[in-house]
Amino acid sequence: MTFPLPLFDEYEKKEKCGLFGVWGTAEASHLCYQGLFAQQHRGQESAGIAVVDSAGGINGHMGMGLVSQVFPPRMLREDLAGNAAIGHVRYSTTGSSKLCNAQPLLRQFSMGPVAVAHNGNLINAALLRAEYERLGHIFQSTTDTEIIVHLLAKPSHLEKADPLPHVLKHLQGAFSLLFLFPDRMEACRDPWGVRPLSLGKTVEGQWCVASETCAFDAIGATFVREIEPGEIVRIDDSGIHARRFDSPPPETAHCVFEHVYFANPASKIFGQTVHTVREALGRQLAQEAPAAADYVMPMPDSGRSAALGFAKQSGIPFEEGIVPNRFVGRTFILPNQGQRDRAVAMKLNIIPDVVNGKRIILVEDSVVRGTTTRSKMRALRHAGAKEIHLRVSCPPIRHPCFYGIDFPTTTELIAHERSVEQIAQFLEVDSLAYLSLDGMLGCLRENKDAYCTACWSGNYKIPIDQPQSKFSFEREQLKMF
Amino acid sequence: MTFPLPLFDEYEKKEKCGLFGVWGTAEASHLCYQGLFAQQHRGQESAGIAVVDSAGGINGHMGMGLVSQVFPPRMLREDLAGNAAIGHVRYSTTGSSKLCNAQPLLRQFSMGPVAVAHNGNLINAALLRAEYERLGHIFQSTTDTEIIVHLLAKPSHLEKADPLPHVLKHLQGAFSLLFLFPDRMEACRDPWGVRPLSLGKTVEGQWCVASETCAFDAIGATFVREIEPGEIVRIDDSGIHARRFDSPPPETAHCVFEHVYFANPASKIFGQTVHTVREALGRQLAQEAPAAADYVMPMPDSGRSAALGFAKQSGIPFEEGIVPNRFVGRTFILPNQGQRDRAVAMKLNIIPDVVNGKRIILVEDSVVRGTTTRSKMRALRHAGAKEIHLRVSCPPIRHPCFYGIDFPTTTELIAHERSVEQIAQFLEVDSLAYLSLDGMLGCLRENKDAYCTACWSGNYKIPIDQPQSKFSFEREQLKMF
Amino acid sequence: MTFPLPLFDEYEKKEKCGLFGVWGTAEASHLCYQGLFAQQHRGQESAGIAVVDSAGGINGHMGMGLVSQVFPPRMLREDLAGNAAIGHVRYSTTGSSKLCNAQPLLRQFSMGPVAVAHNGNLINAALLRAEYERLGHIFQSTTDTEIIVHLLAKPSHLEKADPLPHVLKHLQGAFSLLFLFPDRMEACRDPWGVRPLSLGKTVEGQWCVASETCAFDAIGATFVREIEPGEIVRIDDSGIHARRFDSPPPETAHCVFEHVYFANPASKIFGQTVHTVREALGRQLAQEAPAAADYVMPMPDSGRSAALGFAKQSGIPFEEGIVPNRFVGRTFILPNQGQRDRAVAMKLNIIPDVVNGKRIILVEDSVVRGTTTRSKMRALRHAGAKEIHLRVSCPPIRHPCFYGIDFPTTTELIAHERSVEQIAQFLEVDSLAYLSLDGMLGCLRENKDAYCTACWSGNYKIPIDQPQSKFSFEREQLKMF
Amino acid sequence: MTFPLPLFDEYEKKEKCGLFGVWGTAEASHLCYQGLFAQQHRGQESAGIAVVDSAGGINGHMGMGLVSQVFPPRMLREDLAGNAAIGHVRYSTTGSSKLCNAQPLLRQFSMGPVAVAHNGNLINAALLRAEYERLGHIFQSTTDTEIIVHLLAKPSHLEKADPLPHVLKHLQGAFSLLFLFPDRMEACRDPWGVRPLSLGKTVEGQWCVASETCAFDAIGATFVREIEPGEIVRIDDSGIHARRFDSPPPETAHCVFEHVYFANPASKIFGQTVHTVREALGRQLAQEAPAAADYVMPMPDSGRSAALGFAKQSGIPFEEGIVPNRFVGRTFILPNQGQRDRAVAMKLNIIPDVVNGKRIILVEDSVVRGTTTRSKMRALRHAGAKEIHLRVSCPPIRHPCFYGIDFPTTTELIAHERSVEQIAQFLEVDSLAYLSLDGMLGCLRENKDAYCTACWSGNYKIPIDQPQSKFSFEREQLKMF
Repeated sequence: MTFPLPLFDEYEKKEKCGLFGVWGTAEASHLCYQGLFAQQHRGQESAGIAVVDSAGGINGHMGMGLVSQVFPPRMLREDLAGNAAIGHVRYSTTGSSKLCNAQPLLRQFSMGPVAVAHNGNLINAALLRAEYERLGHIFQSTTDTEIIVHLLAKPSHLEKADPLPHVLKHLQGAFSLLFLFPDRMEACRDPWGVRPLSLGKTVEGQWCVASETCAFDAIGATFVREIEPGEIVRIDDSGIHARRFDSPPPETAHCVFEHVYFANPASKIFGQTVHTVREALGRQLAQEAPAAADYVMPMPDSGRSAALGFAKQSGIPFEEGIVPNRFVGRTFILPNQGQRDRAVAMKLNIIPDVVNGKRIILVEDSVVRGTTTRSKMRALRHAGAKEIHLRVSCPPIRHPCFYGIDFPTTTELIAHERSVEQIAQFLEVDSLAYLSLDGMLGCLRENKDAYCTACWSGNYKIPIDQPQSKFSFEREQLKMF
Repeated sequence: MTFPLPLFDEYEKKEKCGLFGVWGTAEASHLCYQGLFAQQHRGQESAGIAVVDSAGGINGHMGMGLVSQVFPPRMLREDLAGNAAIGHVRYSTTGSSKLCNAQPLLRQFSMGPVAVAHNGNLINAALLRAEYERLGHIFQSTTDTEIIVHLLAKPSHLEKADPLPHVLKHLQGAFSLLFLFPDRMEACRDPWGVRPLSLGKTVEGQWCVASETCAFDAIGATFVREIEPGEIVRIDDSGIHARRFDSPPPETAHCVFEHVYFANPASKIFGQTVHTVREALGRQLAQEAPAAADYVMPMPDSGRSAALGFAKQSGIPFEEGIVPNRFVGRTFILPNQGQRDRAVAMKLNIIPDVVNGKRIILVEDSVVRGTTTRSKMRALRHAGAKEIHLRVSCPPIRHPCFYGIDFPTTTELIAHERSVEQIAQFLEVDSLAYLSLDGMLGCLRENKDAYCTACWSGNYKIPIDQPQSKFSFEREQLKMF
Repeated sequence: MTFPLPLFDEYEKKEKCGLFGVWGTAEASHLCYQGLFAQQHRGQESAGIAVVDSAGGINGHMGMGLVSQVFPPRMLREDLAGNAAIGHVRYSTTGSSKLCNAQPLLRQFSMGPVAVAHNGNLINAALLRAEYERLGHIFQSTTDTEIIVHLLAKPSHLEKADPLPHVLKHLQGAFSLLFLFPDRMEACRDPWGVRPLSLGKTVEGQWCVASETCAFDAIGATFVREIEPGEIVRIDDSGIHARRFDSPPPETAHCVFEHVYFANPASKIFGQTVHTVREALGRQLAQEAPAAADYVMPMPDSGRSAALGFAKQSGIPFEEGIVPNRFVGRTFILPNQGQRDRAVAMKLNIIPDVVNGKRIILVEDSVVRGTTTRSKMRALRHAGAKEIHLRVSCPPIRHPCFYGIDFPTTTELIAHERSVEQIAQFLEVDSLAYLSLDGMLGCLRENKDAYCTACWSGNYKIPIDQPQSKFSFEREQLKMF
Repeated sequence: MTFPLPLFDEYEKKEKCGLFGVWGTAEASHLCYQGLFAQQHRGQESAGIAVVDSAGGINGHMGMGLVSQVFPPRMLREDLAGNAAIGHVRYSTTGSSKLCNAQPLLRQFSMGPVAVAHNGNLINAALLRAEYERLGHIFQSTTDTEIIVHLLAKPSHLEKADPLPHVLKHLQGAFSLLFLFPDRMEACRDPWGVRPLSLGKTVEGQWCVASETCAFDAIGATFVREIEPGEIVRIDDSGIHARRFDSPPPETAHCVFEHVYFANPASKIFGQTVHTVREALGRQLAQEAPAAADYVMPMPDSGRSAALGFAKQSGIPFEEGIVPNRFVGRTFILPNQGQRDRAVAMKLNIIPDVVNGKRIILVEDSVVRGTTTRSKMRALRHAGAKEIHLRVSCPPIRHPCFYGIDFPTTTELIAHERSVEQIAQFLEVDSLAYLSLDGMLGCLRENKDAYCTACWSGNYKIPIDQPQSKFSFEREQLKMF
C-alpha cells in the first residue's frame, strides 16, 4: 500500500484523470492498458482497469503508481481477461490519495456489478452524500465518484426504462464518465462539456472511448467524434446507441486549461489539435506583448508549442536553452527557498552557451504559485542570462477551479491580489506579460461563450451554490492508510 | 497487495477471527497490537486496527499478513495514535481473501464514522444484502460484515433512542462484534453465544474486550467476565453499561470446536480453561477407547493437552516423538500424493529412537480431510512405528459449519459416509477411535444443551432456512485483486 | 536488501548455520530446498543455494530471510536447474548480517568457479586474512569463510595433485564445509569434529550431506554415517571417495551445546539422538537436584525433552503450563525492563489453571543472559505459581565460544562472576540448580574427552592464540548496507 | 533484488556510466546524490554512493534502479554521513546487470578499505584477470572494474612511494576512475581521454569531480577544468595535487558519440558544449544533404539540437510534430514486428495537424539497429506524412565499440554491409542521408586526430590485441541472481 515510485513533481497544477474504454475484443485489457499508458500525463497517482469476464462478472485491479507498474503482463492476460474493459489514471482532485479511492470503482447493487470511471469534479457531491447518508446509505471511499453508484442503485431510478439519464440529471459539475456493466458500456459527458471525451474505432472495428485522442493513436484507432455535452453513448454487442440525458444549457463550458496545459499536444480536444492551439496562443502573445530579444525559448516541455508560435510571429530566432531531467523523482520536502532553488536546478539543466549574455524571451504555459518559476529564473540568471522577458500563454490565474483542477488555495496563487508588475518583481524578471483573456479565446474555434474561463475571470458558469463543496471532504472523519 | 509471508499451513480447518478492543488510554493502539498478537492463532490472513483520533475521527489500517508485519512501530505511534482502538485478525470464512475485505470495516454514515470488527458468520447475510440492494444500497466488499453497517445506517433504526439492539435483532447466525464510534465502543455477542467474547480490565483500570482471555494475559489485564449471549456492553469515558438486545433463546450454542481445536490452551472459553477441557477429553478418550501400547504420543501442537490426559488416565507413559518445524511456510501446490507425503515429512520430524519398534497411541484433536493425517501416519511407519493406535479427541466431523468454521465441502470430509473402520483403513492405522459425542460433552461445564455440536451431529440449533447462504457469496460477480 | 520478515527472536544464543548438499539428480535444487527447510532452526537470517548448471558453470541465489521466502518455486525449477547443489542457512557468527555475507560464497579462481558453504568459526581467519592482504589479495565480504577460497586459489596449493587437504590444514577452529565444483562436491570436517556433518543416501541412491540427520528424514533419505573429523569426502559421478586431510588430534571436541540446545530433537548428532540425550540430561538433573513439587514443566519448546526425563526419573507428574506463541515476529526495541517483561508475556501464554497455586519444577535447557528467563518467571508468578524450582539441563555458561556460538560478551552472561545463589536471586526463583559438568558428560556416548565444554569449563581445546580473533572483524572498516 | 522500476527503453545504444565525487563537506552524500541525479541519463540500471565515515572507514550503499529510488533521504543523512563521497550510476557494459556488479566497488586490502567507481571499458581486463587468477587471486563480480583493485593491492605496487600511477599503467582501454580512500580521493583518466571527467568547485569551495559538467550546474558548482588524459588528480584535506601517470600518447581518442548522443546537451564535454556541437552537426548536415521540405522536425529528445541547426542553416521552418511519452516503462517482449510497431506508437504521439500532408525533414542523432526507427517512420506515415527525408547527424555505425558503448553485435547493426540506399529502403523513407565523417569531425574543436571514430570508421586507436575481450566475460562460469 506504499507509494512505490517517483512522479514528475509538478505539484502546482495537479493533472486530472484520464479514461479509456473498449468493447468487444479479447484484447480489451491490453488495449485499455495502452490507451491509459498514452494518457499517463493526465494522472500518475493510481491506475485501474475493470473488465467483463467470460462469466458476465466484473473483475478489476487498481494500484498506486504508473500504468506500467500497476499491471504486469500476466495480470492483463489472465486476471483481466475479458471482452470489454474500462480504465482510469488518476491524480486525485477530491478524495485523498489512497488506494481505496483508486478507480474504476467497483460496486455491487441490485442490478449486479458495475464499474465506474470518472474525470471531473462534482460540485454537489457533498450535498448528495449527506442526503444519502440521511437515507441510511453508507460510504467507504472519500471520492466524489462513489455517490454516482448510490444514485444508480436508487430503486426509483431503476424502475425507469432507462435509468442512467435520471441518475446523471442529479449530478452538478464536471463529469466525463464511463460505466461498465456486464452487458454494456456507457460513456457520458456533462451538459457543459467541461472535460473532453471522444469516441474512436479500432482497426478491427471495435468502438472505444478516451479522454484524449492520443490514446486512439496509441492503439492505431481512428477518432470518430466527441461524445456530445449532455450525451450518453451506449456501446454493446449490437453497436452504439446515442441518447441525450439533458437538454443542452445555452452555452458550454469547455475547460481552456486543457488546451493551455493539460492535454497532450498531439491530441484533438474540443475540435482543435492542442499543439495548434498552443502555437496560436504563442503567436497572439507575440502580437500582444512583443519584446526585443536574441532568442525565444520555451520552458520545456509544456511551453514548447507556444514558444514556436511566438518565434514564428515575432521573427525572433527559436532556441532551446533548458534541458529538463527526464528522470525526476519525488523530491524531499525542502524547508527553505535556497534548497528549493537547488531542487529546481537538479531538475533542469541550462545550456550556458545559449543563455550566457543573451536577452531571452521565455515562454511558459502558465504560472501558478510562482515559487518554482522564480527558481527557474534564478537558474537562468546564474547561467548568465542578460535579460529575461517572461511571456505566459494564458492570463493570470486568480480563482480556484471547482471543476476538476487542483490549484492551490486562492491565497497561494501568485496572481492573487498582485499586479503583473508585482509578480514580475517577485519572479525577478526584466519584463512579464500574460496573454489577454480575449486574445486567448480568440485562438479557439468556437465562440468565446463556449468555454470556461473561471480560473482567470472568476466567472463560474456552472452555479456554485456550495462553493465549499470542493473542500468539504477534507472534513472527512474517516481515514484509511 | 501481494500476500507477503509464510503461513502455518493447516488448510483443513481454517481458523476464525480474533477481536480486541480497549478504551481510554493513549496506549490504545499498542495494547490492541499486543492483544491481536496474542490471538494470532485465530487468523493469519489479515490484520487491522482502527482508532478514535484526537479530532474525534476514526483512522484505520489493514493489511495482509501477520500482526507483526502489518503494523510497523511508527504506524502505531503516529498514524494510529488515539485513546481507543479495536482490532481484528482474520482468516476469511466468507468473502475471498482480499485486502478490501480486511477488517475492521471503516464506513461513513449519517451519524459519522464507524469501525466494525466481526468474528462469526451471518447466515442471513445474503438475504439481507439482497434486500438492501433492492432498496438501492450498494456494496463494495464481499464480506458478510458489510451488511451490519447498512443496518446500522438505516434511518428507522437511527430514530430509536438506542439503535444498536434493533440492528442486532436482524442478524441471524454467529456474531461476536466490536463497534468503534467516536464516543464509544460497543461489544456484542449473538444470543446463542456461539463465539467467545470476554471483558477485561488493564492494570491501569481501562476496560478491554477480547475473543480469548490469552489476550488479557498478554497485556497484563485481568479477565472480568464474558460478554453474555444477547448482550451489548457499551464502553465509554463514563465506564461500562450493559444491556440486552434480545431475550435469550432457551439454550445457547457455544462452539465446542473452540475447545477441541481453535482456542489457545491458555485461554478461558465458555467458563473453562481450554487446556483443562482438552486434558479431560483425553482422559475420557482413554476410558472409552483404551489400547495396549508403549507410549501415548501427541500430534503436536494441538493434540498435546489431550494426549497428556490420555496418558494420565491410562497410566501409559507420555512421550514426545514428533517435532514440528516451526518455520513452515506456504507450500507449493503438490500434484500427487507421493509429493504431498513428502511435504508433510518436511514439516515434521519424527524422532526415530522414540518411534522405532514401538506400539504408539497417537492423540490427535480432530481429523478433517484425512489426507494430511495419512501422510503423518506414513511418516511414523517409515520411522519404524510398529503399531499406531490413532485416538481422536472429538467425534467424526460429518457436517458443514454455518457459524464460522471453514471446513471443506461435506464430500471432502473423510468421515462423510465412511465408517470408522473405513477411515482407519484409509489412514493406514492399526486402530482408530473417536471420542463419543456424549463423552465429549461430559467434559464440559454446562449442560450439553448449551453447546453447538452441528459439525458432528448435524443438529443445527440456529435455524438454517437458507443453508446455501454460506456459499452464496461465491456467486459474487465482483472481484478485485 | 531489507530484511523482510519476522524471526523467532531468541537473541541470547544465536544459532549456527546448516548445510545441505546433494549430487547427481535433476531434482538437486528441490532436494536442497527441502534439506535446508528442515534445518531452518539452525539459521533464519539468510539462505542460499548454488548449483552446477548444464553447461558446467555454477549458479547461485542467496537472500535474506527464511528458505520459504528466499526461493520461489520458479527459481528452483529454472534459475537453479542442475544436477548438483549445495545450500546454506545462516545466522551470522562472524560478519555482519548483510546479503554480501550470505552463503554459499561464489567465487571465480584459476580453476574455474566454486561455491563454499561453511558452518563453524575459524579462529585464525583474521590472521590469515591479514597475511593474504599483505600478499596483495582483496576481500569483499566480512565473513571468515572468504579466506578459504583465497587459500584454495593459492598457486602452490593448486600444484598439488589434491590441493584441498593442503588448504584445510591451514584452517584453525571449527569448520564443517561443503565445496561445490563443476565436477564434484567435497564435504569436509575439522579434525576436532566440533560441528556435525553427516552423509546420507536418497531413495534413488544419490549421495547427500547435511549438518543434521533431520534433513535426511525430510527428503526420505537414509543416514549412512558421519563425515569423520579430519576427513574429506569427495562426491562425484563415480561415487564417493573418502580421504583424510589431517591426522586426528588425540581427542575430538564435539560441541555439547548442539545436544543441549541447537540441534533438532529428531536428529542424530555425534552418534546419539538429540531427544534421547536431552531426556537423559533431564533424568540426571532429577537425580542431582530433586525438588518437592506438584509438577515438572518444560520451558517450551527446547526444554521439553529434558523435562520428560526429569519427570520420569522423579516420578513427579509431567505437565504443560506454558504455550508459546508460534507467530512471534521481530520485536520492538524495548527500553526498560517493564516493557521487556511485557514483550515476553506477549510471546508465551501461561495456563492459569495449571500453574495457579502450584509448586513447579521448571526445566530449561540453558540460561544465557538471564533477563528473558526472569521475565518468564515473573509471568509464572503473575499466573499464581506458588513455588518455582528452576532446573537447567547444563552447567552455568561462563565463557565465550570461539567455535561458532554467538553468546553475548562474557560480562553479559548471567553466570559470569555470580554464584548459583545469586543467579537464583536475580531470576526470582525459589530454587535453582544447574546440571553438573560431569553429570552432563555422563549422558553422552563417548568418553568425556571427546567433547568441547569450553563455554562451561573455560577449557579451550583448540588453541586460541588469538582469543581476540572472534571480534577482530568488528574492527572492519568496510560497511555495505 | 528485483528491478523495481520502469526505464526509458532505448535498448539499442546503451548508455555508459556517470561518476561524481566531492571532498571535504558534511553534505558530501547529498551533493553526491544531486550530482548523480543530474547524470541519470548516463545510466539507470543501478546507483551507488560510498563515503568516508567519521571513523575513517568506508561505508557504501548500492541498489538497482534510479538514484531517487535507491537512496531514501534518511540513508543519505545517517548511513551515508561523512565528509567525502564518490558515486556512480551505471548501465552495464561488461558484467551482467546484477547488484553484485553495482558500483562503487568496495573492497578491503592491506592498506585498508577502498571504493572505486569506473566509467569506460578495459580491453585487457580478461587478460589481467586470468593472470591474477593464476597468481591465486579470486574474483567475485563479473565487472572489469574488479581487476583494478587487485592491481592496487599488489605488494610490488604498494612498495612504491605513489602506487597508483603504476596500477593505472597496466590498464588498457577507456577509463575515467574515481578512487575513495579514507584520507583522499583520486580522479584518473586514461591517456586517450576516451570518456569525459571534469573538475569543479562548489560555492563553498570544495573540490568535486563529475563525468559531465551538468552535475556541477545541479549543485551550483563551477567547472574548473577537465582532468587531463593520463592525469591523476588527488584531492584531500590539503587541496588538489595533479600528477601524470603516463606520458601522453601522440593523440587522444575522445569519444565523439558522447557529443552525438550520450551527453546532456547542457554539458561541456571535451571543451565544447554538447548542444552547440549538435547544432553545428545539424548545420553541416543541411549543407551536405539538403532536401526540399515543408518542415525540419527533430526526433525528440536527442535529435532536437541538430534539427535546430539544420533548420537555421537551410532556412526551412523548424517544427515539432512528435511528442514523446515521458512515462515510458519497461516494455513487454514483443514477438512480431506488428506488435513492435504498436509499442513504438505507444511511446510517441504524432501531431497529425503538423504532419499530415507534409514533406518532412526528420533529424535523428543516429540509427543503430533500425527497427525502432522504422516503426517511427511508419507512425509518421500513418499520421499522413507525405514525404520523409531522414537526416542522421553522424555517419553510419558499422563497427563495435570496445571502449564502453554497448552497441548490439555487428551483424545486428542496420548499416552493417548495407548501402545507404538499402537502409533507406529498409526504413521506408523517401530519402536518407548520414553526416559525413569529415563533416562531423569538422564541427569539433580539436584536430580530427584527437577523436575516436571507431564505430563509424573501424579505426581502433587503442590497440585491440584481444578483440574478444569485450565478450570474454560472457563465458563467465559464475552467475548470481
